[in-house]
Amino acid sequence: MIGFALFGAGRIGAMHAANVATNPRSRLHCVFDVHTATAEQVAAAHGAKVAPSVAAALGDPAVDAVLIASSTDTHVELITAAAKAGKPVLCEKPIDLDVKRVEQCRRDIAGTGVPVQLGFNRRYDASHRAVRDAVRRGDVGALQLVVITSRDPAIAPMEYMKVSGGIFRDMTIHDFDYARFVLGEDPVEVFATGSVMIEPALSAIGDVDTAMVVLKAPSGALVHINNSRTAVYGYDQRMEAFGSKGMVQSENWRPTSLRRWTHAATAAQDPLLHFFIQRYAQAYVDELNAFIDVVTSKGKPEVDFEDGRKALIIADAAWESVRTGRSVKVTYG
Amino acid sequence: MIGFALFGAGRIGAMHAANVATNPRSRLHCVFDVHTATAEQVAAAHGAKVAPSVAAALGDPAVDAVLIASSTDTHVELITAAAKAGKPVLCEKPIDLDVKRVEQCRRDIAGTGVPVQLGFNRRYDASHRAVRDAVRRGDVGALQLVVITSRDPAIAPMEYMKVSGGIFRDMTIHDFDYARFVLGEDPVEVFATGSVMIEPALSAIGDVDTAMVVLKAPSGALVHINNSRTAVYGYDQRMEAFGSKGMVQSENWRPTSLRRWTHAATAAQDPLLHFFIQRYAQAYVDELNAFIDVVTSKGKPEVDFEDGRKALIIADAAWESVRTGRSVKVTYG
Amino acid sequence: MIGFALFGAGRIGAMHAANVATNPRSRLHCVFDVHTATAEQVAAAHGAKVAPSVAAALGDPAVDAVLIASSTDTHVELITAAAKAGKPVLCEKPIDLDVKRVEQCRRDIAGTGVPVQLGFNRRYDASHRAVRDAVRRGDVGALQLVVITSRDPAIAPMEYMKVSGGIFRDMTIHDFDYARFVLGEDPVEVFATGSVMIEPALSAIGDVDTAMVVLKAPSGALVHINNSRTAVYGYDQRMEAFGSKGMVQSENWRPTSLRRWTHAATAAQDPLLHFFIQRYAQAYVDELNAFIDVVTSKGKPEVDFEDGRKALIIADAAWESVRTGRSVKVTYG
Amino acid sequence: MIGFALFGAGRIGAMHAANVATNPRSRLHCVFDVHTATAEQVAAAHGAKVAPSVAAALGDPAVDAVLIASSTDTHVELITAAAKAGKPVLCEKPIDLDVKRVEQCRRDIAGTGVPVQLGFNRRYDASHRAVRDAVRRGDVGALQLVVITSRDPAIAPMEYMKVSGGIFRDMTIHDFDYARFVLGEDPVEVFATGSVMIEPALSAIGDVDTAMVVLKAPSGALVHINNSRTAVYGYDQRMEAFGSKGMVQSENWRPTSLRRWTHAATAAQDPLLHFFIQRYAQAYVDELNAFIDVVTSKGKPEVDFEDGRKALIIADAAWESVRTGRSVKVTYG
Repeated sequence: MIGFALFGAGRIGAMHAANVATNPRSRLHCVFDVHTATAEQVAAAHGAKVAPSVAAALGDPAVDAVLIASSTDTHVELITAAAKAGKPVLCEKPIDLDVKRVEQCRRDIAGTGVPVQLGFNRRYDASHRAVRDAVRRGDVGALQLVVITSRDPAIAPMEYMKVSGGIFRDMTIHDFDYARFVLGEDPVEVFATGSVMIEPALSAIGDVDTAMVVLKAPSGALVHINNSRTAVYGYDQRMEAFGSKGMVQSENWRPTSLRRWTHAATAAQDPLLHFFIQRYAQAYVDELNAFIDVVTSKGKPEVDFEDGRKALIIADAAWESVRTGRSVKVTYG
Repeated sequence: MIGFALFGAGRIGAMHAANVATNPRSRLHCVFDVHTATAEQVAAAHGAKVAPSVAAALGDPAVDAVLIASSTDTHVELITAAAKAGKPVLCEKPIDLDVKRVEQCRRDIAGTGVPVQLGFNRRYDASHRAVRDAVRRGDVGALQLVVITSRDPAIAPMEYMKVSGGIFRDMTIHDFDYARFVLGEDPVEVFATGSVMIEPALSAIGDVDTAMVVLKAPSGALVHINNSRTAVYGYDQRMEAFGSKGMVQSENWRPTSLRRWTHAATAAQDPLLHFFIQRYAQAYVDELNAFIDVVTSKGKPEVDFEDGRKALIIADAAWESVRTGRSVKVTYG
Repeated sequence: MIGFALFGAGRIGAMHAANVATNPRSRLHCVFDVHTATAEQVAAAHGAKVAPSVAAALGDPAVDAVLIASSTDTHVELITAAAKAGKPVLCEKPIDLDVKRVEQCRRDIAGTGVPVQLGFNRRYDASHRAVRDAVRRGDVGALQLVVITSRDPAIAPMEYMKVSGGIFRDMTIHDFDYARFVLGEDPVEVFATGSVMIEPALSAIGDVDTAMVVLKAPSGALVHINNSRTAVYGYDQRMEAFGSKGMVQSENWRPTSLRRWTHAATAAQDPLLHFFIQRYAQAYVDELNAFIDVVTSKGKPEVDFEDGRKALIIADAAWESVRTGRSVKVTYG
Repeated sequence: MIGFALFGAGRIGAMHAANVATNPRSRLHCVFDVHTATAEQVAAAHGAKVAPSVAAALGDPAVDAVLIASSTDTHVELITAAAKAGKPVLCEKPIDLDVKRVEQCRRDIAGTGVPVQLGFNRRYDASHRAVRDAVRRGDVGALQLVVITSRDPAIAPMEYMKVSGGIFRDMTIHDFDYARFVLGEDPVEVFATGSVMIEPALSAIGDVDTAMVVLKAPSGALVHINNSRTAVYGYDQRMEAFGSKGMVQSENWRPTSLRRWTHAATAAQDPLLHFFIQRYAQAYVDELNAFIDVVTSKGKPEVDFEDGRKALIIADAAWESVRTGRSVKVTYG
């Protein structure tokens, strides 16, 4: 049984807490949150302790691993501290919004040998992973085109948007990581453009709510990503990989398999699952299992710090493309 | 160029007239209808003559073949006359509502050697035919279950229902023929039941508007047919053939391939094509081509008088099943 | 926390044990199985005790409820004992294969007031339930036709088939219950027929592996069920309800939402989930939650002893129909 | 009856000839092709004359309209001559590969008042048009994202590629026109990139076979186009329009509605219709009908010379984007 310390007990932290608590191979040992009441509530729900501090949690020998689900600006500090304490880390994306801080963190944890797994949920979704696996097996032949449709069901409040780092670092970063996952290589060029069509207040902070991206890989494979902050029919998550031997796609899931036939329409399906907590519920379970495997085997995570760093570098390049109107070369340092 | 005489210039006759006239291998020579104005209209639309009588049409050397689209009660007489005149016949289903008259007609035309093709449109639909072809090729292995969904978009007026011969002779007869087509053998047992759920006036004439049938074939394969006289979403025509190696299905067609995604529903498709004239438009063209092939090659029709006779025998057995509550053995004489 | 005694620790018992153990509102207190080693294994996996006997388990005050997943022939005795001990029961279908024993059990437990919930898994599947809910809300108007497709992925060994009670009591019984669930009324007539097309040895024991059923409800609504013991593409479970305002259907689920496009085929999906443990995994969780609600609230189960009894009565009538070739009137005593 | 002169009797010319000949409102009067044998063959098939020269055809009073299906480099000359002769023109896309020649042609025919309709087939496809109509009606609210998937089934021979003008002028030009059609406004920016992944010989002529484009409209709406010269599963043509109220899509058509279920895959559909002659067969008929309406009513074509000119301007900007790596501003002169 792997004992977990959970840092951050908000919505996504609470979900991770439940996954840790019900997983037969793990238990929730302690919870820390800057809002003590929040930590207490989540800890109580699963018979865990409230940790008085991060340091106390990291010093606790009953803590075998750390799950970071706190606000983005705390990730670097927590990853560094956990790595130095020798505790394997599962950290929600992104590592940080500032690539300089990410590079510093990378240097600080180098040599600790502590595994740091990043929480890119798409990688653990059975359908999106099946697309990648089919590509890797050669089912589509030489990969030529990838189309990623990724639309949120409803835009977040402006308070969140202001600290989000902008659409590419906050939302598209998942798609950048998935693009690397399915490509099996790192994009070398990125073009991005966007519009403000949903929340006019975004203009004042230089963000967009509607975006399109084109990536080019060394092989010549091209990737398209389109994003919207508000799809009224639900959380739209589709992947398509096309190559010399054919195509594979992962389609959306619905709450039920119901089809309705009326005088007005036929075979109409449910609206999509609302958002990531529902859509990727099983992915979060599988992500945790993969992390427990890593902790248990002292192995390497499939999706690690480097993946988080590279996705952020692409996101930065996307913003540069928006500013310059150019396709921007991406280098990973 | 095969010269056609058309008997019957109502809705379906007019459609056949247009198909004959635009087919590069045929021309509409003359039209006869007991309503002369109707005949005149259809003839004029395609530069054809109005025949003064059936006999005149059949005696006209420019008439190479006959298309019978008149009311059901005239079919036997017209088939017999045409066969005796040596003119190949394409006749709309059914041959007649009375199997005794059908048997008499069979005897009367025996020995003429004149091909009589029956207008069972499902056989010429590319999708339903693809189901049959897949079964015949062995794609589903040993055929075990057939499910036929066959629902009209809107019930006909009571005047029509009164002379229709009842649902099994009028509507299900298509499905009985399709069952034989896909089975490749003749059903030996039929169970049928029905309800009046749409048009209460049907009770008085002993008919039903909602029906289910189960057929058993000599091989043990079972066939289910379900019928409704009114499907508000359009003309519902689906075939399913299941066996030891898998299943094939033919789905409905829509006017467009549009899918709609709203807050209320996703991937909603168009209502179905309204009715047989639209749904089987291409099937009627292909049926005509098959008939022209027969006329030209002096060959045998793929669907002929015997198919019409057998489908009627099954329909009669279905009515007997409704009356007796028993599964009725079917023999074809 | 509801403490459970589990009777029967085979495949389906082990699944229920895991569901009880991971449910936040229940715990697995003890396990009894005639094969002690089996009981020990399941108990150990969830930190439960092995009960030395049924009586000991029923007499244990830490046991709040009983889950019966033992072989069918033990159900009546266990239900009766549990009811007399005042322990609410969740029992796998069927109650028994002999309606006389079921009637006796009904009398024996009458007056205990102990809730007995039957494990008809389709009722707790979100998609099949959505069909029922849509019908009940009037979305399809007056219900006219129900089509139930229910095919197992692979036939069980003959040892099982010999004690199964035959296809209608063993397999179709789920579909009979679902028919009653969606109809909202009890069928008054049943016609059934079948063939041996998969396992020739079934003929010797008077069973079939391929079957079709037609039910008629008092309203006139008609229900069709088709069954096969072996569908090579997986466990095929589809429901369709048609009425005066339209139709709803529940489609199959696949392991992933993958679609494959090759030179040979387009939009090909995964084979279906293999069998009931996978297909109805969430239904079993939801069924348990419904039962815990009943135990907690002292309420009535939505699906209870009467539902199990009535489904068996229909199954018996189906066998009578096969024997007699007649549509058999069903009365429920 | 509109009498047509057909210029160009190759594959697409022959198809147009058949459409003209079988349309009840038109007849094929004469055919001209630089290969006289080709002209003779097509003329003979439809009882038309071979025109000795373009001038003769244009001077023939029996010619009411002209259909241009000859090689691209002859379009400008033929359009100009026909317009000056007062004969309405239906011309296959593109007008020319050189925008300067297009501008000259525009000046040359200005003031003739002769309608010139361009053959952008997507506009007349019922499904793609239904997407546009839904957008125009406001069904998706404010239009935000358009995704156009457009892939050919098999790359053309290098001899053709060398004179094609490159992928954006030859293939994507259809998608540029469709983008304008669905947007209802002219794109102001275009980014394009491409790779050689199918036919290495394309590198030497500066063309690509795999491409992605992003357009931005004045409203802020973004359009993505992806192209491949070879999709092994057939001619892939899908449109998607997304906005504040939802989404509409047009899916591909297959030859039949067959679905196949085997141990390896479920609900597998046919490969797509091979190419444009099959996929847009009805669109070509409807395009001709629209043109006959224009000729008859002396009206304006829905898709005219200006549409052809603007699509070419976007294509030129796409090539400039490829060369410069920049998003290129588009102006229409």
